[in-house]
Amino acid sequence: MKKKTVSSPALLVDLYELTMAAGYFERGLNSRSTFELFVRHLPSERAYLIAAGIESALDYLENLRFEDSDVQFLRAQPALKTVSDDFFDYLRKFRFTGDVQAVPEGSPIFAEEPILQVTAPIPEAQIIETYLLSVVNFETLVASKASRVVRAAEGRSILEFGTRRAHGPEAGVRAARAAYLAGCDATSNVLAGERFGIPLAGTAAHSWTQAFPTEAEAFEALLDTFPETAVLLIDTYDAIEGAKLATRLGRKIPGVRLDSGDLLEKSFEVREILDVAGFSDTKIVASGDLNEFKIARFVAAGAPIDVFGVGTEVATSRDVPALSVVYKLVEIQRGGLREVKTKFSDQKVYSPGRKQVWRFSEGERFHHDLIACADENYPEAQPLLAPVLRDGRRVIPREPIARARAATLARIARLPEGLHALRNAPTYPVLKSAALERLLDEVRELYSASRETTGVGSAQ
Amino acid sequence: MKKKTVSSPALLVDLYELTMAAGYFERGLNSRSTFELFVRHLPSERAYLIAAGIESALDYLENLRFEDSDVQFLRAQPALKTVSDDFFDYLRKFRFTGDVQAVPEGSPIFAEEPILQVTAPIPEAQIIETYLLSVVNFETLVASKASRVVRAAEGRSILEFGTRRAHGPEAGVRAARAAYLAGCDATSNVLAGERFGIPLAGTAAHSWTQAFPTEAEAFEALLDTFPETAVLLIDTYDAIEGAKLATRLGRKIPGVRLDSGDLLEKSFEVREILDVAGFSDTKIVASGDLNEFKIARFVAAGAPIDVFGVGTEVATSRDVPALSVVYKLVEIQRGGLREVKTKFSDQKVYSPGRKQVWRFSEGERFHHDLIACADENYPEAQPLLAPVLRDGRRVIPREPIARARAATLARIARLPEGLHALRNAPTYPVLKSAALERLLDEVRELYSASRETTGVGSAQ
Repeated sequence: MKKKTVSSPALLVDLYELTMAAGYFERGLNSRSTFELFVRHLPSERAYLIAAGIESALDYLENLRFEDSDVQFLRAQPALKTVSDDFFDYLRKFRFTGDVQAVPEGSPIFAEEPILQVTAPIPEAQIIETYLLSVVNFETLVASKASRVVRAAEGRSILEFGTRRAHGPEAGVRAARAAYLAGCDATSNVLAGERFGIPLAGTAAHSWTQAFPTEAEAFEALLDTFPETAVLLIDTYDAIEGAKLATRLGRKIPGVRLDSGDLLEKSFEVREILDVAGFSDTKIVASGDLNEFKIARFVAAGAPIDVFGVGTEVATSRDVPALSVVYKLVEIQRGGLREVKTKFSDQKVYSPGRKQVWRFSEGERFHHDLIACADENYPEAQPLLAPVLRDGRRVIPREPIARARAATLARIARLPEGLHALRNAPTYPVLKSAALERLLDEVRELYSASRETTGVGSAQ
Repeated sequence: MKKKTVSSPALLVDLYELTMAAGYFERGLNSRSTFELFVRHLPSERAYLIAAGIESALDYLENLRFEDSDVQFLRAQPALKTVSDDFFDYLRKFRFTGDVQAVPEGSPIFAEEPILQVTAPIPEAQIIETYLLSVVNFETLVASKASRVVRAAEGRSILEFGTRRAHGPEAGVRAARAAYLAGCDATSNVLAGERFGIPLAGTAAHSWTQAFPTEAEAFEALLDTFPETAVLLIDTYDAIEGAKLATRLGRKIPGVRLDSGDLLEKSFEVREILDVAGFSDTKIVASGDLNEFKIARFVAAGAPIDVFGVGTEVATSRDVPALSVVYKLVEIQRGGLREVKTKFSDQKVYSPGRKQVWRFSEGERFHHDLIACADENYPEAQPLLAPVLRDGRRVIPREPIARARAATLARIARLPEGLHALRNAPTYPVLKSAALERLLDEVRELYSASRETTGVGSAQ
């Protein structure tokens, strides 16, 4: 991307957020409103999701500004030509001034549990919708997939290599962070290393081997330059011959990588070649369209693979490349009253009103969740949503990623054991409080009573 | 993203590109090398791909610089600690100085056809691999999917709305451009409008309707603010009632949107309500997890839908969220000789040597392609690869996106008719020239003859 564009993420927004904000502004509608961001339903391939993208959302909210050039561009848009100058002045001075609650990044979450809850003047709450959905959708997607891969590897290392197949290199950075948060050990994406302090890893490409007159020279050259870290890619021509060649060089070999063919069979053969030749410290790295199912199979077969390199599958969450994330108005303050809101046109109606999610444990394990109205209290359970921004400013410090990762792994370990199954996992129980159900019923009755006051309930 | 990071895309790279570049540098290996970027095989869901991401690649190559802070970060990396200071000086002065050939952006392309062909000193050609793969993979993915959606709509408008489900908002920008290139009519992504001049479009959200005391007030407010462009989202509570309400306002109604339920059935009902009330000019927009198959079904049923809003399916290429793009060394100049290169460890071996793709036509339609050695000539066919960068500088002007889009649509129209089928399309014939086949045989023989000169052929 060009420098100009990326320095102004304010235009990373759907046009309709701005036309609606303009409409609210023109009508003097500035009511404090609460929106909740949640996943409508879990994909059948996922027993749980790992919430991510929250730090990205907070960075955006704290720094959101419209540059003069942005405002000039908007002013020239046909869609905004009927909007008054005052709105463009409003954009020029725009700051996000709202309050945000969020679940801790790296929390296991389930359908209909708010991940973010935004309370702000409605034009502000509207403008931020697109960006928030996009980062939470994608980073949650990757963290959730990575968690499965990490689980399948049963303690073996996972390197995330996906940038080349991510949806643009910027998506690669986001994917690297989300994958690390969920338990991957390192990434190949250098910018993710620089921005977040994630450990970097890499091996060598087939082109390296091909660039030298012989494979032996290629191996020697890599070992000369990186005597402590070189991982020889041995399968450019023939993996078994490549392994034998490596052992004949008379050098220390930190690692070898297999990237094609039957990785399971070859890993055994290569391990034996290495061991017989006295290279029992040499690590075997395997890669090539790996996912949680292939890794689980290798692990179950006792494959002597020390490190898995995983790319496309994690960086695109290939089997589930999108979540049903939505951002819904649940409450609006009008004339001192809080009106709770929902819509009824969907098969599945989302409960109105501000919420809290309570997580109940039994022993070490999480047992079930209860989605309740925000003003309920369940002292025996853990509330998931906590304030993260107040008046547009962070109220929690930024957590180092390594600590967030450790906390994430600890939380995942507390899920009911069955949820770690890669297929046919049981459904984690998520209940709704009686008060929340009652609120929905009340709104539904009001709606039925009169289309002209449709969807409007009054909760004190 | 933070300003700092995005202003320096040089770190949007896999670590191993830099370690390999360092290794080449340390060994004095600076040979001019040719890499080709291509898709290994077409996904079974795609009869053709639309090449995209080329402009992104060229922008990157022309502007690639390592900032001092980038170099400092790299120098501190454990993986690079054995690398000499000279390499970091090299990075500080780094410019891409190579030559690049490419197919025109928006070309239909097939498996194994080079999309980009890079000839440069090998460290340069290596460093750029990750970024090039990432942008070509993703933008081609989206353009290819969008082309199917556009085809299914048979002339009805398609609005691309996918940023909220794209893999981060930056992916949304790339998706918007690729979708427009392939024939979508507008995007919701404002930054894509600003950067590329793509038309912007948008409607309103359910939250808009809910934010007002009544649905009628919400509709009135939108029409007040945007009398010429407002599209009323009529399904917040009940689409049919919403349509009736709209007709009772006594206002001009540019459009209405349906976003839930049975869109086919509802479109007929709503059209009738509008027509009976004299609103035959009011457009109907439909949205809600649409893809090419659903749209084809609506079109076949004669649904009175004027505009389709498509999001997730296009912006993530949901059914095929990654392509098998690779970037392979095919030739290296050494001591005045050109050695051609390939690797044999894969099931499918890519032909060595620099190539050209010749497209043969019969009448108006493309008939077949021939992949040939770069020095062959087929005057009766059209060569696809043409110079785009020479010595790191553009040799073709940047094309306005609207013109690129028109050229793309013209090319797609020239594909054999069967290729437009959404399912079970025939395979477009892609042949290889005798000279190219011979070259592969020669390299294979040399490889069999001696593992020590493995994969090395000499083409004068």
